[in-house]
Amino acid sequence: MHGYTADKDAYLKRLRRIEGQVRGLQRMVENDEYCIDVLTQISAATKALQAVSLGLLDEHLKHCVAQAVAEGGTVAEDKIAEASAAIGRLVRS
Amino acid sequence: MHGYTADKDAYLKRLRRIEGQVRGLQRMVENDEYCIDVLTQISAATKALQAVSLGLLDEHLKHCVAQAVAEGGTVAEDKIAEASAAIGRLVRS
Amino acid sequence: MHGYTADKDAYLKRLRRIEGQVRGLQRMVENDEYCIDVLTQISAATKALQAVSLGLLDEHLKHCVAQAVAEGGTVAEDKIAEASAAIGRLVRS
Amino acid sequence: MHGYTADKDAYLKRLRRIEGQVRGLQRMVENDEYCIDVLTQISAATKALQAVSLGLLDEHLKHCVAQAVAEGGTVAEDKIAEASAAIGRLVRS
Repeated sequence: MHGYTADKDAYLKRLRRIEGQVRGLQRMVENDEYCIDVLTQISAATKALQAVSLGLLDEHLKHCVAQAVAEGGTVAEDKIAEASAAIGRLVRS
Repeated sequence: MHGYTADKDAYLKRLRRIEGQVRGLQRMVENDEYCIDVLTQISAATKALQAVSLGLLDEHLKHCVAQAVAEGGTVAEDKIAEASAAIGRLVRS
Repeated sequence: MHGYTADKDAYLKRLRRIEGQVRGLQRMVENDEYCIDVLTQISAATKALQAVSLGLLDEHLKHCVAQAVAEGGTVAEDKIAEASAAIGRLVRS
Repeated sequence: MHGYTADKDAYLKRLRRIEGQVRGLQRMVENDEYCIDVLTQISAATKALQAVSLGLLDEHLKHCVAQAVAEGGTVAEDKIAEASAAIGRLVRS
């Protein structure tokens, strides 16, 4: 069980929609659509992925990190360090 | 014809790979994989989309914007303003 | 007392360096230096600010959020929601 | 003369304001202000820097890149490649 498990269906739905957006990008490129229009749709897909990340991160803090903090000691320190590293990757992606 | 048309196959291949990454994310969520591992893969898919954007933008500058600049006047101004707006969306996504 | 208080001097030193970078940008613009060189230095200053943010966020999770989680209830929920919102702003900036 | 030269005073004014924002961050840290409030102000300073970058980039495309494109040949190719690389750094910062 993870933080997001309770919302699994909602996350799967969002990811399927993003999959559809990426297939839509393929159609646009296939049909030689205008570069700027393709770029606009890529920004939309990127933002959708970003929103999924922020949702998962929030759930992770609420559940996995909170449980580790309750346990205390190195379990808590490692879990927070891990979360901070993931936030760093998210910020730099 | 657009800037990317000559490299269409390469872009389609990259987009299909990204589609595969997003399906992979669905499997990870389906299988209750650890939040941080899902986040890591989302960052990878976001970076791949970003790289496609930067490639398309470079081609757009080389072809569409360059042609408009050669034409000059408002055609050039509008095309550059459009490119700058797309760069802004990319930076903020 | 906050998470970063113990490292206050290090953060102040980093922020003074960033202040110096921004004054350096003013000199570059004053001296009509090449646009791309100015852009390169802006990216450096932005990354330095980003690194300060990630440091502060890590400290915040380790101290403020961990304390709130130990307290539990709405204190913990509110503190995590607040941290998630700050992460969202950081990702979108 | 570069693209931004005509707007030099406006850019200098914006950069001085950002310098003030960074000094404000130092005061917040000096006064042990709450981590989240410091993070919020860092995001504001980062966005201000980003906006300066996008402005400079737009001017660069309109002047330096447009002039190089009018010249054609490797001068144009090199200038566009340079602009694309700067856009890449901006997107990843």
